[in-house]
Amino acid sequence: MRVKVFVTPRKGILDPQGRAVESSLKGLGFTAVCGVSVGRFIVLDIEADSTDEARQITARMCEQLLANPIIEDYRFEVENG
Amino acid sequence: MRVKVFVTPRKGILDPQGRAVESSLKGLGFTAVCGVSVGRFIVLDIEADSTDEARQITARMCEQLLANPIIEDYRFEVENG
Repeated sequence: MRVKVFVTPRKGILDPQGRAVESSLKGLGFTAVCGVSVGRFIVLDIEADSTDEARQITARMCEQLLANPIIEDYRFEVENG
Repeated sequence: MRVKVFVTPRKGILDPQGRAVESSLKGLGFTAVCGVSVGRFIVLDIEADSTDEARQITARMCEQLLANPIIEDYRFEVENG
């Protein structure tokens, strides 16, 4: 089963990577940009008997390794098949 | 207008971050994992008069800065509003 995980900086938490990308984009002439946030996009293939099981495993992986819950939020989507 | 950009390692290109995460997950006991790819999830707010204009700006930003087209693929979604 394929799972897509989106990890994003929490609101109110400093996002230096986002600030750097925004500043670089403006330097390249992309003046229409007014906000950038940079996170991670993780795609996992996991063996699970059900979508529910896949969800449970993924939530544990996010809490333990994929995200830092103090400074990051995460959400994920489980694809069937 | 809000744009979500997904940058992923190209198929066939070495993804050391993905390999490291997979190995760490297995080390933590997540033996159901059989493949991990780590990319970036970038959210941008841009001022544009139309979805079409936003798409054109985003494609240029991806080619010039957000992705490395030699080793990465990208796709993006423009949200209305």
